[in-house]
Amino acid sequence: MATAATSTDRAHRAAKRYIYAWGGEAAEGDATMRDLLGGKGAGLAEMTNAGLPVPPGFTITTEACNDYFAAGERLPDGLWEDILEALHQVEAETGKGFGDPANPLLVSVRSGARFSMPGMMDTVLNLGLSEATLQGLVALTGNERFGWDAYRRFIQMFGRIVMDVPGERFDHALDAEKAAQGAKQDTDLDAAALRRVAGAYKAIVREVTGRDFPEDPLELLDLATKAVFASWVGKRAHDYREYNKIAHDLGTAVNVVTMVFGNMGDDSGTGVAFTRDPNTGARALYGEYLTNAQGEDVVAGIRTPQPIAQMREVMPAVYDEFQRIADRLERHYRDVQDLEFTIERGRLYMLQTRSAKRTAAAAVKIAVDMVGEGIITPSEAIGRIEPAQVDQLLRDQFDPKARAGATRIVKGLNASPGAAVGRAVFDADDAVEWVGRGEKVILVRIETSPDDFHGMAVAEGIITARGGATSHAAVVARQIGKPCVAGSADLIVDYGSRAAHCGVTGIDFKEGDWVSLDGSTGDLFLGALPTVSARFEDQPELQAVLGWADEVRRMQVWTNADKPEEAAQARRYGAQGIGLCRTEHMFREGERLEIVRGAILVAARATRAKARLAAGEALGADDAEVVATFDAAMANLEELQQGDFEGIFEAMDGLPVVIRLIDPPLHEFLPNLEEQLVKVTRAEDAGGASDADRELLATIKSLHEQNPMLGLRGCRLGLMIPDFVKVQTRAILNAEIARVKAGGHPIAKIMIPLVGHVNELAATRALLEAEAKAVEAKAGVHPEYKFGTMIEVPRGALTADEIAREADFFSFGTNDLTQMTFGYSRDDAEGGFLLKYVEDKILPFNPFQTLDDAVAGLMKIAVDKGRSTKPGLELGICGEHGGDPASIAKCEKIGLDYVSCSPFRVPVARLAAAQASLVSAERDK
Amino acid sequence: MATAATSTDRAHRAAKRYIYAWGGEAAEGDATMRDLLGGKGAGLAEMTNAGLPVPPGFTITTEACNDYFAAGERLPDGLWEDILEALHQVEAETGKGFGDPANPLLVSVRSGARFSMPGMMDTVLNLGLSEATLQGLVALTGNERFGWDAYRRFIQMFGRIVMDVPGERFDHALDAEKAAQGAKQDTDLDAAALRRVAGAYKAIVREVTGRDFPEDPLELLDLATKAVFASWVGKRAHDYREYNKIAHDLGTAVNVVTMVFGNMGDDSGTGVAFTRDPNTGARALYGEYLTNAQGEDVVAGIRTPQPIAQMREVMPAVYDEFQRIADRLERHYRDVQDLEFTIERGRLYMLQTRSAKRTAAAAVKIAVDMVGEGIITPSEAIGRIEPAQVDQLLRDQFDPKARAGATRIVKGLNASPGAAVGRAVFDADDAVEWVGRGEKVILVRIETSPDDFHGMAVAEGIITARGGATSHAAVVARQIGKPCVAGSADLIVDYGSRAAHCGVTGIDFKEGDWVSLDGSTGDLFLGALPTVSARFEDQPELQAVLGWADEVRRMQVWTNADKPEEAAQARRYGAQGIGLCRTEHMFREGERLEIVRGAILVAARATRAKARLAAGEALGADDAEVVATFDAAMANLEELQQGDFEGIFEAMDGLPVVIRLIDPPLHEFLPNLEEQLVKVTRAEDAGGASDADRELLATIKSLHEQNPMLGLRGCRLGLMIPDFVKVQTRAILNAEIARVKAGGHPIAKIMIPLVGHVNELAATRALLEAEAKAVEAKAGVHPEYKFGTMIEVPRGALTADEIAREADFFSFGTNDLTQMTFGYSRDDAEGGFLLKYVEDKILPFNPFQTLDDAVAGLMKIAVDKGRSTKPGLELGICGEHGGDPASIAKCEKIGLDYVSCSPFRVPVARLAAAQASLVSAERDK
Repeated sequence: MATAATSTDRAHRAAKRYIYAWGGEAAEGDATMRDLLGGKGAGLAEMTNAGLPVPPGFTITTEACNDYFAAGERLPDGLWEDILEALHQVEAETGKGFGDPANPLLVSVRSGARFSMPGMMDTVLNLGLSEATLQGLVALTGNERFGWDAYRRFIQMFGRIVMDVPGERFDHALDAEKAAQGAKQDTDLDAAALRRVAGAYKAIVREVTGRDFPEDPLELLDLATKAVFASWVGKRAHDYREYNKIAHDLGTAVNVVTMVFGNMGDDSGTGVAFTRDPNTGARALYGEYLTNAQGEDVVAGIRTPQPIAQMREVMPAVYDEFQRIADRLERHYRDVQDLEFTIERGRLYMLQTRSAKRTAAAAVKIAVDMVGEGIITPSEAIGRIEPAQVDQLLRDQFDPKARAGATRIVKGLNASPGAAVGRAVFDADDAVEWVGRGEKVILVRIETSPDDFHGMAVAEGIITARGGATSHAAVVARQIGKPCVAGSADLIVDYGSRAAHCGVTGIDFKEGDWVSLDGSTGDLFLGALPTVSARFEDQPELQAVLGWADEVRRMQVWTNADKPEEAAQARRYGAQGIGLCRTEHMFREGERLEIVRGAILVAARATRAKARLAAGEALGADDAEVVATFDAAMANLEELQQGDFEGIFEAMDGLPVVIRLIDPPLHEFLPNLEEQLVKVTRAEDAGGASDADRELLATIKSLHEQNPMLGLRGCRLGLMIPDFVKVQTRAILNAEIARVKAGGHPIAKIMIPLVGHVNELAATRALLEAEAKAVEAKAGVHPEYKFGTMIEVPRGALTADEIAREADFFSFGTNDLTQMTFGYSRDDAEGGFLLKYVEDKILPFNPFQTLDDAVAGLMKIAVDKGRSTKPGLELGICGEHGGDPASIAKCEKIGLDYVSCSPFRVPVARLAAAQASLVSAERDK
Repeated sequence: MATAATSTDRAHRAAKRYIYAWGGEAAEGDATMRDLLGGKGAGLAEMTNAGLPVPPGFTITTEACNDYFAAGERLPDGLWEDILEALHQVEAETGKGFGDPANPLLVSVRSGARFSMPGMMDTVLNLGLSEATLQGLVALTGNERFGWDAYRRFIQMFGRIVMDVPGERFDHALDAEKAAQGAKQDTDLDAAALRRVAGAYKAIVREVTGRDFPEDPLELLDLATKAVFASWVGKRAHDYREYNKIAHDLGTAVNVVTMVFGNMGDDSGTGVAFTRDPNTGARALYGEYLTNAQGEDVVAGIRTPQPIAQMREVMPAVYDEFQRIADRLERHYRDVQDLEFTIERGRLYMLQTRSAKRTAAAAVKIAVDMVGEGIITPSEAIGRIEPAQVDQLLRDQFDPKARAGATRIVKGLNASPGAAVGRAVFDADDAVEWVGRGEKVILVRIETSPDDFHGMAVAEGIITARGGATSHAAVVARQIGKPCVAGSADLIVDYGSRAAHCGVTGIDFKEGDWVSLDGSTGDLFLGALPTVSARFEDQPELQAVLGWADEVRRMQVWTNADKPEEAAQARRYGAQGIGLCRTEHMFREGERLEIVRGAILVAARATRAKARLAAGEALGADDAEVVATFDAAMANLEELQQGDFEGIFEAMDGLPVVIRLIDPPLHEFLPNLEEQLVKVTRAEDAGGASDADRELLATIKSLHEQNPMLGLRGCRLGLMIPDFVKVQTRAILNAEIARVKAGGHPIAKIMIPLVGHVNELAATRALLEAEAKAVEAKAGVHPEYKFGTMIEVPRGALTADEIAREADFFSFGTNDLTQMTFGYSRDDAEGGFLLKYVEDKILPFNPFQTLDDAVAGLMKIAVDKGRSTKPGLELGICGEHGGDPASIAKCEKIGLDYVSCSPFRVPVARLAAAQASLVSAERDK
């Protein structure tokens, strides 16, 4: 090759080397030189070095770009001469001449920075075209229309990008010609018309810029190069770098690449192909091609492309070469490649190779196959699958063909993935009733509240008109693994007529109509679409990858589960413990809610009476009755809870179970204040409300708080009404004893919520230990348990060194910690200003979905302080962030021991934790 | 004196020196030896060294105590011999004999630790009494009854403290004797009866302990010494040290001191006196004495003591000596002393000297006088006055004599100091009506809400049955300088009958009854008590002290004021700026509230319409009308606010004024949801509610939030409805321009509330700067202003380095910062669990009154991070903690530039800031 000698000449001329060329079978650069050559330039060089046929060209370095600006937007000395020399080299390589009317060399001029900035910077194609060289192109292709179309496109592109002519001026001129010809499509214009359009374009350029459109290809090259440099400092690119935290001083490289044409006859063609099937992962070339055509023809849909396999028949030698190249590229890049190629007069050119996008199923199969083929290691396989793809594989999906033909009613947020089919109902009670008689239902609500839980639990899926991706509907749906579409703002739901209407599509549906809901995409379709199911047990490749992930990851993956069925499911998914078992969820179901309400109505009075009793005072008959009522209700609850805990311990036998004592404010177990107020007001007006209703209203009012999120809940509740702590402690420890007697291995960890001051934890611990001793004395068995706390109040994090004195473990409750650190009430913010904040980029993301860096920083403070007091402190996270891959990466950095997430997120978390470990190992190298 | 020689002997005997004696005119110890001798022992030694007549005695060191426990509760070798020798020395000094029936030496055995632990440890008096020595005491005093009474008291005290006999056993025996004699008081028992009591006591000791009551004085001394040691490790003392963070290994000293008797004839006597009048500060001995009496006689009220001046007539020489001693002690300790003395047979003994408690007025006068007399420096004078005393001096007070004779109805929390007299009213509207016709009223409420403000503003004082020292009533009362008693839990208020009843005193009062309220003490009295007023301008001594304070303090003192009158008052009190001017308070008054409501009803819709308009869309007629309505209301508000700001700038001419843009959630300006719901429900049932009422209810519901404290408020509001920011910016800057044109010197600082992310501040700043440019363009004048933010969200503090990029100043909003750092909703917590937390010592104090250390730590993080970005960042506090002395000390440590507090707290803050500076200067030495 000729490059070596000339590059030495260039090195003599300039102090710095600004040009790296490629061509033939060698390149001056390679894949390691991304800083200097940009991603594209380094990639083209690498392909050339790999022996692949790449159209020759050269890269002007990022350094040249920076020097250009440093010199006040002047090309550095010697650069232009270097460019000319590199261009000559390309001419020699291709046998074409830049500006040669007989056999014109055309090039593309493309930007290429260190980091991909898709769409942010400028590209000019077909540079080298002029009225003169156009004739050569027409002669070579035998297609006059193609030649003129290419030329008018070039003027349009160059005029807009390089010469700053407003794009709509060109559009108007094209429209005018189409109108004159009665043409509907651009493709209806013939060569003569396009020639007139080119003339009109040139007139526009003259009018706007005051100069003629350049005819000298070298002048065009000079201008295009400078335009690419300029696009680096343009507003679009600047903003993109700001947002993505890319440094502004990297500069962009400029790639000048020979254009090749697939439409030069039947020995020419063009195509795209994947080295494996990107839908299934099957190991065979997958793609399509067209003879005597350019890429644009495929896009324009003028001709129907053929499957790639057919190329074997038509051009067997080229096909074989392509198959060899595909194999080599896959081995070289060690991943499935997405290839673009053009055959110009029997010669194959590779125009692009990049890692292929693929479906979840393909990603897993390809990763596992490639490990089997010895192409990648298991650790690399882990990095080839996106955590979201794991999630996708575990949800039912609609049959793709049926989906493609379905009628979409509305599109909302993809709040919880999966496909669900059922008949629309508009009320939770109705849902239960319909399901009771064997129907499948989709619950349609404006928004959901805890009162709707029983309906959500029986529905196939949920759709709401209001609320974001972390609204009640979304959070609960993810928790219980139901597909959910939230915040379908265009859907108008009318509970009165039990019907809904979409303001955009105009489609209505009413109660009983079949609908199909895709929680992975946010679509609601009319009718019942067929689904394809995907069970974890049936996916050995996924299990293989997660098995490798288990070997790699440092953090354990636990689950948030409140019921034995959930725990068992999570365990099948690979959970190594329960990080959060919420006892109050057990309070809410059926008869239990009535028992709990009975206790709450008398709790305050009974607690005061008991305190007097403990101080040696005698009680009046009224108070004694109140205490008896309270104790009876609590005893009832204790028995039920013990059963619950036995079930959980059995499901998680041998694994740790973190049980959180009662957390929510008591009014959550009572009817809504407004509803009860209206009920009593109406009854009073109509002659008198019942004593029970009045008493209930009074209790609801007495428990009403301005800001319940910051009110009487968590450990505060247990300190005000100690019986809650006592009863729950007894239920947990007696369940443990019962399991041990049955031959089980329960591992109990009792967790206190909402601790902000070490004294709260110490006081609760004293209550709990006294009760534990009583249980031990009665049972004659010592129940083992660990005692710990949630860190979810900023003060708890800030004083973690003190709190660690009283705790065996911490679990970060990042939902509340985020609420309090930001001062956001999640219930209010997500439906309100937070949406706008994320939209306006005041916040980079919703901090309830992905852990905010300042909240993570506060956690780090707590981790450091906690371990300073107790080096062996066990540290985990049980907020919803525990199932979010980006947050899991932050947990790895902070140094947590485990993440805990909803059962359906466990496989995702296993993979994400492994990826985080790999990143951290890479960083530590 | 003889001590020097024998102390050498002792030093030879024991390796350590366990005994330090005093007597005659010299002591072996002095005031610097508090660690070894305890506070009392060091004090007695110091008085002796100062040449004062102190009854001889000796101290057994704290080291002896520690060695006693280290040796397994055995006296260290040689200690007992040392005690005997020290005792002989005291015998020699006094001419009495320990156990000598003719002339018995009696001693007290008292504990005395390094730190005062009042009431926590044990003391035995009259040790040396026995049946034998008792006869000598009777002979010397000529009073047999006194002798037997002293003896039975000794048995009782010794039996209980040293021999662990239950105290009630002795009480029962005494009661039995009184019953037998038909005696009502102890003093009704004669010598014979008391002798029988002593016998009964001894029988009890025998029965309980199984041994006779010791008759040997040396055995009694041995037992008493060990009992004092033992009291150091007793539960009471241990808990006290835990709570007060005193180390447990300090040990206690034991002081053995000669008893002296003032009842040995007419040349004996006893008395207490202050070196200056503790009520007024007048420079003259102030106190009382009794001839031929003991201290107990004064306490028992058997005889009426005489003013100390009369002693001059009766015992001129002793009086002169006492006057000389008083002067010396005052100069020696450089403070007013509270003295106890006894004259035994013409000889004056000083038993105690300590700094005197004094009234606020006396404290100030004494401090200023002592500076004048050259006794103390101005800096020391600053330290002699408690900040709370300054506050007290600025409030009206009840005439002390009238107060002493008044009937107390109830006692609550002293929430806002001062005396107030008026007729009881039970409703804010009634208060306004009554005051309108010339009455003075006290507003009596179960609790108050913002709806009661107009009533509070016209009332003389406020009393509530519920709510703590930081409840709405308390906070607002302090803010507007009204006396307030909060949380009078025993008061049952019945709005229906307009009457109240105290469950404890049984006293009722009803609407119109005169009551007198003391906010400094928390008392409510029946009737109209006369008051004495105290104006700042009339208190030159107070002004002198505060002037010295101003020279000493590093931090400035600013004020929180929303109105020109408040600002002017604060300026008279010495405020150096306004640290918080809350603009929304201006929205609430009279007609303004209606304007604001009008704007709020259409704000959301108008804002959306304006956004469409800005994007070039046309508006429908409906939307155009909404925008016009909104703009008209906002223009109206702008004009009113500009007037407000001009007034504030005028009052604070030349001083900085920090104006905070609108902060509270909008629903605070609307009627209560529940009330409106009941109203509409009733109207609907009765035939139909008005459209206006329905619309209002809908708006209230749409603005309703689960946790409004964490909802749409602060800067969030301004970002959602930018017109709030624009209108307020225009009002502020145009007011500034108007003031400049009028020759004034306004200094405007605009403050953005509730910032948690730097982008919030940056976005608000952009809005505001655009508006400032528009104002400048229109007026042709450049309005100067600084731009800053509150730090009141934990995330704001944690990311202060980022936020400082956009801010000229920070002001810590510690009310919200405390709420969010603890996760406490103040409105809910203070009436609920927080009271119990403080009561149960889960929290050491209410963190809304005094800055919590973890919150202060978070502020320190913000200060350090903020200054790391911008070294000149101005830092202040505008939460209520800014007026609390303990919190001011923490602000000094954190390094703030100023504190800002309510106008009435400004003088207090000036003193507290000076004291904080002095402490910090001391620490830096």
